[in-house]
Amino acid sequence: MPRVDTETQLCAVIGNPVEHSLSPVMHNAAFEATGLNYVYVAFRVENVGACITGMRALPSFRGMSVTIPHKIAVMEHLDAIEPMARHVGCVNTVTNDNGTLSGSITDGLGTLRAFSEAGVDFTGRSVLFIGTGGAARAVSFAMAERTDAARITLLGRTPAHVAALADDLRAKTAMSIESGPLNALEGAMAAHDIVIQGTPVGMHPNSDASPVPKALFRPEQIAFDMVYRPHRTRFLREAEEAGCQTIPGIEMLINQAVLQFELWTATDAPVQAMRDAVVAALE
Amino acid sequence: MPRVDTETQLCAVIGNPVEHSLSPVMHNAAFEATGLNYVYVAFRVENVGACITGMRALPSFRGMSVTIPHKIAVMEHLDAIEPMARHVGCVNTVTNDNGTLSGSITDGLGTLRAFSEAGVDFTGRSVLFIGTGGAARAVSFAMAERTDAARITLLGRTPAHVAALADDLRAKTAMSIESGPLNALEGAMAAHDIVIQGTPVGMHPNSDASPVPKALFRPEQIAFDMVYRPHRTRFLREAEEAGCQTIPGIEMLINQAVLQFELWTATDAPVQAMRDAVVAALE
Repeated sequence: MPRVDTETQLCAVIGNPVEHSLSPVMHNAAFEATGLNYVYVAFRVENVGACITGMRALPSFRGMSVTIPHKIAVMEHLDAIEPMARHVGCVNTVTNDNGTLSGSITDGLGTLRAFSEAGVDFTGRSVLFIGTGGAARAVSFAMAERTDAARITLLGRTPAHVAALADDLRAKTAMSIESGPLNALEGAMAAHDIVIQGTPVGMHPNSDASPVPKALFRPEQIAFDMVYRPHRTRFLREAEEAGCQTIPGIEMLINQAVLQFELWTATDAPVQAMRDAVVAALE
Repeated sequence: MPRVDTETQLCAVIGNPVEHSLSPVMHNAAFEATGLNYVYVAFRVENVGACITGMRALPSFRGMSVTIPHKIAVMEHLDAIEPMARHVGCVNTVTNDNGTLSGSITDGLGTLRAFSEAGVDFTGRSVLFIGTGGAARAVSFAMAERTDAARITLLGRTPAHVAALADDLRAKTAMSIESGPLNALEGAMAAHDIVIQGTPVGMHPNSDASPVPKALFRPEQIAFDMVYRPHRTRFLREAEEAGCQTIPGIEMLINQAVLQFELWTATDAPVQAMRDAVVAALE
């Protein structure tokens, strides 16, 4: 940890609860690895408006990660919202430029960065989302807006939720969007190149579960699981055993933080130092 | 520096400017020496009301040192002001108890602590203040309220300022108070046991100056200088050469921070670690 002094910039995660956030571990490791004079703490916040008022008055409170339950509520208090966050309808990042507060969302672009680091090119490929919750929403918007994927298909448990996300993506992006119920999984697995597991199924302590029967994987597919606890979910293990390229959920966690770090510091993030720190914290 | 994580409590100095504050050095050294999970930063603040609104919304923003120009302006935004700070009319410390913000002033009591550490007993003794600015005001109130000194005499350059402080001390405390102009110095030096230099005279870069001719010191006197740059002012050097016990201004700086630390952490402050850190920073 560099010395904390009168030049130190503060960053923090706000949420409620925040005790289990991995953001301080990742960001402090990044500040240490780069030698930047920043420190990152966690604030349990109830009154998000008052918290933002305070941030505006503290120019050296440079950056904020926003987590549940404030990702939507924080937006009305900011001075600017970047377009993707406006489309997604929530913010996970606030950047303070001398009292002007901008909101952005790095979950989706962070996930694209993880795919890019893994050598995946979306051009012309079909993407299947299983689950349509908040994280899937953020990632599907990033894919729809920033990749040349051929089409995106959304499958989910609750038809109204699936239809709402599909309609929203169609209204706000140029991507070709299909949607359907979870019992369309077999056909969908046969027809898509990239499979994104976006449900909580398989999350610790239910790590024996997977929403995708192993037999449905094809070796030419790429499988990504948003769940990062355990590191290797059953979904990922079986995809790998079937010969698929896999990307673990922790890469989404790391890369959304990487993009935050770069917004706040205008410095290339020390990705491996951040990965090492979060892996150590999870063990 | 202990690891900064989701349990870390934040403390900070607010002021404008804050670049030269020695508080981060002292408090971070204290947190490190005690192993407490706190970190201390500096915030340049213009809108003190908004800053306090933010602190109230951040329960782990535990403590604030307040410096120029906010020591008076901050008061109206707090939930409680301890009596001595109310009497002095300003605050140098804010403590956040889960959203309830209390203001206190540790400059005066910190100075008393410095005298106490030096083995000085005020009982029955006469105290002479040279200078009646903000720091002298804080220390004179602490002496008037918390010691058994026999009397306090205030000398200063501007008769109206001297009279105002004298009247205020008489109105709010039971201490016997006299006051007069600076040209009464010779007689006053002959008649007081403890001499407190509270003017900026002798401060770096004018370290050749002293408001007290060397011949006026008597070896049985105790001399304290509020100036801490240089560490040994001409006033202190000549007092010492005359055989007086001396207390350097840095002890006021250290001990006001010691009392802040104890308010925020309910832990005995590691005084020597704080002293070492600030001495190193000043060198």
